[in-house]
Amino acid sequence: MATQVEASVLHGVKDLRIESRQLPPPFANEVQIQIASTGLCGSDLHYYSHYRNGDILVREPLSLGHESSGIVTEVGSSVSDLRPGDKVALEVGLPCERCPKCKEGRYNICKEMKFRSSGKSFPHFQGTLQQRINHPAKWCYKLPEDVGLDVGALLEPLGVALHAFRRSLMQPEATVLVFGAGAVGLLCAAVAKLKGASRVIIADIDAGRLEFAVQNGFAHNSYTVPMRRGKDIDESLTMAKETAEAIGKIDGVGEVDTVFECTGVPSCVQAGIYSTRPGGRLMLVGMGHPIQTLPLAAAALREVDIVGVFRYANTYPESIEIVQQAMRSKDGPDFSKLVTHRFCGLEEAPKAFEMAGKTKDADGRLVLKVVIDSSEGAPPSKL
Amino acid sequence: MATQVEASVLHGVKDLRIESRQLPPPFANEVQIQIASTGLCGSDLHYYSHYRNGDILVREPLSLGHESSGIVTEVGSSVSDLRPGDKVALEVGLPCERCPKCKEGRYNICKEMKFRSSGKSFPHFQGTLQQRINHPAKWCYKLPEDVGLDVGALLEPLGVALHAFRRSLMQPEATVLVFGAGAVGLLCAAVAKLKGASRVIIADIDAGRLEFAVQNGFAHNSYTVPMRRGKDIDESLTMAKETAEAIGKIDGVGEVDTVFECTGVPSCVQAGIYSTRPGGRLMLVGMGHPIQTLPLAAAALREVDIVGVFRYANTYPESIEIVQQAMRSKDGPDFSKLVTHRFCGLEEAPKAFEMAGKTKDADGRLVLKVVIDSSEGAPPSKL
Amino acid sequence: MATQVEASVLHGVKDLRIESRQLPPPFANEVQIQIASTGLCGSDLHYYSHYRNGDILVREPLSLGHESSGIVTEVGSSVSDLRPGDKVALEVGLPCERCPKCKEGRYNICKEMKFRSSGKSFPHFQGTLQQRINHPAKWCYKLPEDVGLDVGALLEPLGVALHAFRRSLMQPEATVLVFGAGAVGLLCAAVAKLKGASRVIIADIDAGRLEFAVQNGFAHNSYTVPMRRGKDIDESLTMAKETAEAIGKIDGVGEVDTVFECTGVPSCVQAGIYSTRPGGRLMLVGMGHPIQTLPLAAAALREVDIVGVFRYANTYPESIEIVQQAMRSKDGPDFSKLVTHRFCGLEEAPKAFEMAGKTKDADGRLVLKVVIDSSEGAPPSKL
Amino acid sequence: MATQVEASVLHGVKDLRIESRQLPPPFANEVQIQIASTGLCGSDLHYYSHYRNGDILVREPLSLGHESSGIVTEVGSSVSDLRPGDKVALEVGLPCERCPKCKEGRYNICKEMKFRSSGKSFPHFQGTLQQRINHPAKWCYKLPEDVGLDVGALLEPLGVALHAFRRSLMQPEATVLVFGAGAVGLLCAAVAKLKGASRVIIADIDAGRLEFAVQNGFAHNSYTVPMRRGKDIDESLTMAKETAEAIGKIDGVGEVDTVFECTGVPSCVQAGIYSTRPGGRLMLVGMGHPIQTLPLAAAALREVDIVGVFRYANTYPESIEIVQQAMRSKDGPDFSKLVTHRFCGLEEAPKAFEMAGKTKDADGRLVLKVVIDSSEGAPPSKL
Repeated sequence: MATQVEASVLHGVKDLRIESRQLPPPFANEVQIQIASTGLCGSDLHYYSHYRNGDILVREPLSLGHESSGIVTEVGSSVSDLRPGDKVALEVGLPCERCPKCKEGRYNICKEMKFRSSGKSFPHFQGTLQQRINHPAKWCYKLPEDVGLDVGALLEPLGVALHAFRRSLMQPEATVLVFGAGAVGLLCAAVAKLKGASRVIIADIDAGRLEFAVQNGFAHNSYTVPMRRGKDIDESLTMAKETAEAIGKIDGVGEVDTVFECTGVPSCVQAGIYSTRPGGRLMLVGMGHPIQTLPLAAAALREVDIVGVFRYANTYPESIEIVQQAMRSKDGPDFSKLVTHRFCGLEEAPKAFEMAGKTKDADGRLVLKVVIDSSEGAPPSKL
Repeated sequence: MATQVEASVLHGVKDLRIESRQLPPPFANEVQIQIASTGLCGSDLHYYSHYRNGDILVREPLSLGHESSGIVTEVGSSVSDLRPGDKVALEVGLPCERCPKCKEGRYNICKEMKFRSSGKSFPHFQGTLQQRINHPAKWCYKLPEDVGLDVGALLEPLGVALHAFRRSLMQPEATVLVFGAGAVGLLCAAVAKLKGASRVIIADIDAGRLEFAVQNGFAHNSYTVPMRRGKDIDESLTMAKETAEAIGKIDGVGEVDTVFECTGVPSCVQAGIYSTRPGGRLMLVGMGHPIQTLPLAAAALREVDIVGVFRYANTYPESIEIVQQAMRSKDGPDFSKLVTHRFCGLEEAPKAFEMAGKTKDADGRLVLKVVIDSSEGAPPSKL
Repeated sequence: MATQVEASVLHGVKDLRIESRQLPPPFANEVQIQIASTGLCGSDLHYYSHYRNGDILVREPLSLGHESSGIVTEVGSSVSDLRPGDKVALEVGLPCERCPKCKEGRYNICKEMKFRSSGKSFPHFQGTLQQRINHPAKWCYKLPEDVGLDVGALLEPLGVALHAFRRSLMQPEATVLVFGAGAVGLLCAAVAKLKGASRVIIADIDAGRLEFAVQNGFAHNSYTVPMRRGKDIDESLTMAKETAEAIGKIDGVGEVDTVFECTGVPSCVQAGIYSTRPGGRLMLVGMGHPIQTLPLAAAALREVDIVGVFRYANTYPESIEIVQQAMRSKDGPDFSKLVTHRFCGLEEAPKAFEMAGKTKDADGRLVLKVVIDSSEGAPPSKL
Repeated sequence: MATQVEASVLHGVKDLRIESRQLPPPFANEVQIQIASTGLCGSDLHYYSHYRNGDILVREPLSLGHESSGIVTEVGSSVSDLRPGDKVALEVGLPCERCPKCKEGRYNICKEMKFRSSGKSFPHFQGTLQQRINHPAKWCYKLPEDVGLDVGALLEPLGVALHAFRRSLMQPEATVLVFGAGAVGLLCAAVAKLKGASRVIIADIDAGRLEFAVQNGFAHNSYTVPMRRGKDIDESLTMAKETAEAIGKIDGVGEVDTVFECTGVPSCVQAGIYSTRPGGRLMLVGMGHPIQTLPLAAAALREVDIVGVFRYANTYPESIEIVQQAMRSKDGPDFSKLVTHRFCGLEEAPKAFEMAGKTKDADGRLVLKVVIDSSEGAPPSKL
């Protein structure tokens, strides 16, 4: 029998409404989950602020949210490895499972992927900012005792970082440079560090974020990128070379083996090319200007591969392991510190979105990851 | 005891002189080789026409030539696998053999590589446009009976194509697109075809080259790229999309798995990005404008990797096999047809360089690869 | 509405009966297929002769057959890429699609795989020796115009050979040795040859099969293995070394890069280890004695990997390409010649099984692959 | 000018003599090194006890020792990256640098490898149990400040463990089983643990070694293998299955992803096959009985690869990083604890060899790695 649940639904620019929906019982292969934590991501913010995300328009009212964890409340008849009460993280993209990419296990680039909270497929696949949802059991991952629900929600962006790491082919003794100290950049740095990079440098224009990164074990060292821009492409490239040289002088870093570019800003992509040693890799994790001018020969002639990253595939089990490995490490990183702000109840969603758009809160504290607990009667604090 | 040999030496822009040099006997690990065929390459032409190659200046008189084969005339005391009379192809880059890249077998990106005919290391490592040279036996590859000396010289650019193929991770049933039907583009197409690509399309602005490519078994089909350029980046990208779409309509190609970009022209690099399917690879083989504006998001969000290629490593034995495989194939390619013009004797070098700079000769025949036979008393034809 | 179809059903040792079954209409994601060709495989023969296959007992009446092709007669409501009249090859193993192995694309080792004609899962998943079956559309592969239905059925064992090839990491210029010139051994040799192996030697005790292999382009050369067995392990190993040495002397083969062992016979596995060069791979494709005595140090100290192969994953599209590549090749192989005997109608099944158990037929012709056409009113010949 | 140095030289079974040798100045590409620590290895012990190692006979007086570190005392004229006083670890195998395996970077299986202290090449390449030796600078690795000379000597067996790890393709969240808690087994466990294995179980017949392993952070848990042997192959296999099952019950391990077999004992190799999950890998690190009887089908049908390991290639830089990573880890391992006994001066060599042959010393303390400091005037303790 269907249950009545509340959902936060976007109807237009900054027009979030709470609505009631009928939730049928889970299908045989599904579980029903009370959503306990949903992290807000850049794409959620784009939808919230513009009712679109780049080229993708919202064409019907849409619940946002896709970085999520929750508690199983009911299981379908053929589900045997989950039971009510289990804490789970959700993988919210459902690939077609028929195309060659799916059969080969590279399902993140399935062209028929349906992804919660995205306006790409139609009817839209509704996001997790609801009290409860039904979701296929095979895309739910049971969390161990010692992994909390907010960190469970972080497994989604951590999957992006892990997927980027895998595609980077980073070798253990590598020197790594990360541009951007937002959530994804911090997670990329953390993964590289836990995977044995001998030196992880993180670069950003915000000194506060860099301080956070180094003090909490996400990176070994940092570099504050100057904010000034070049007046033309020649000056930009000259500045990018200077940035690369300045970073090369930190602790005798020299050239870098792998760069994770998490800002999308052209000057960082350019500096990333100059920073990377012959045979190294520049990972494009952050999306920014869709058209960019690059010193292409400086990449090609030195076999610096320019490699994009789109979401993730087969990351959840290893991400859980990474979180536990971090807990055992002497010098971090401490993933739980990434969740800087927590809002309880769907009616708090607008406040949460406003907060997620800032870099510091009213008290001057950093804003990194903002989460919403949308479960019924959510307590004010559940960390 | 030293022998006296003649060498073609570049002293300035288009200033090639024939000079005598004293050639000592080969060291214990070397062989002495009479150079029978040297193919002229784009970088040779740059040096010849500008006394420089991009940023690299010539700083002392320099013999050009690095695509070479010859006949062993003498062997050093510790050489056991070659003997006088053997036909060999030369690998003319000598890596340092000490750095981690060399130890790992990726010696093409060794920073201390000394490469014949290049002005990069100093004193310059002299090229092969000489009657005889000494060269380490380990970098000489014995040619089988059925592989001629001109095809032996082609093993060098074929190594570039094979290295590009290896780095492309092309799967056998792939659909492949090659931009540029010069020697390297034709070789990239040929390698992809012989490696089992189900469909190889070659694109160029020159219909004559495309006809050559398809008729001689280098590619399955072709596309004539229009010569018009966009007036700004927006129009350029629109045109690049149109090119990608037009190619996608050939024989129902749709999206392409792997693109080998052998022109370096921005519009082709852009069209290459649009042409490639999610998860495919764009190989940057040709070097053109060092700074280029690209639709970067169209690559990154679809995990289209942008991968450069610099020379080659460990290619000669497999290249010889590829040549023999081509001879066994019903539908080519016929590598020997790539050598369209042959000049005998070092005094012919200026004529050869002038010819190499044209696309058609005086009789209207295509100019693809021009070779020089610099052996003493070279007969007019030795194919 | 259900259709009535006939099925060949095994009720005990050599007890094949023709029975009527009700075939419901296909589910939304299924197609209904008239089975036009089913190749008989060693495991089918085991079930037929022993009502078991090694440790696996038959626990209820079972239709055999899993190397199959047919013609689509009806499509489910959500099937868009197949239509009635299409020729298809069937991939008859249905993985769970939930476990990590499935998600990663390595579904052949899914522990919950249900495989037609196998007694492993219960209730047994019925084989293809039926007039029609329903099968998920995603596991049916449309055959091109120029690929016939019997070759379509061969795509299943060809998938084994291709999977073995992929796991072998064979390099193009490789020297390859195949033990066993039955259907799978011939297919392994053919794949290695088409993938560019410079030399493929096939070894068997049956000179007739070897002659077939070389004359029809499946291998370059052959070696007749002596039938005598060693009286103890020491003599066996001595003989295996002699076999390896004798093969090494063929055309100056020396050591072999990759061995495909398709017999399961200990003396061949042993000779395979001795034949392989340091760093090469011995592929265990054929299953024979489950417990074997091996010269393990001769493998381990030379880094000769011993690598098993179990069925296949993601092979059908590439196998179709391989078949077409073979047609374009000057020197074969000719896959259609592998089907040496064809029986029409389910009532011919017992004769077909008897034939499949022989190495030569009454006329002295080789028996390689025996197929059964089980479609209604199957014509006597359809090749 | 030559220096006079003392060397420990083996002249027959247990016949170690101290002899004077003339050491010429280092060649241009060499450094001269005062040997500060040489670990004794199983092969050294074989030579010492039998004047042979398996099939390899000693054919002239031979200095043993190949796990070594020392202090640079002089550098050749072309050496620029080392200087007198530098602490270095030595890679003592010199590959031919000409064959394809060398050029590809897989130099450990070069057939012309000359390896110090081995009787394989002739004249034998003398080992490091000498006061000083000359060695090519490219095969010497500078140790960081915080890595001591005894741990420097450990980099050699750590290279074996790292090479085994690399060839194991172990994934980070893996469950790992190591058979054998001697030095190499402990190092394999340590590497797997540091590389992120979620669970490392070590198995041995010696409970003391297992206690050492777990208490010092080399493994998470352990299993004491019973000493009893099966009376025939059937009983042996039954017992091996029982061992696999018993290990599977530890902490809910179930099946294991990767097994490092470091004993060479057949019952462990057999249990290793049964323990490994489908698609996993059994690494043969320890060499024991050269001919072994295995449950081959249990490996092949589940795609459990059996993969040997011979020495190492390109491991030193990463091994140094691993040592430093261990120091940063909360829970070890502590590599320095592996060196349980240290002897100073070449005249102590016989005592050191006797000790290395025991499992416990006179005081009942474990014997794991015994090292000899052979530098002139070596102080009693230098750790």
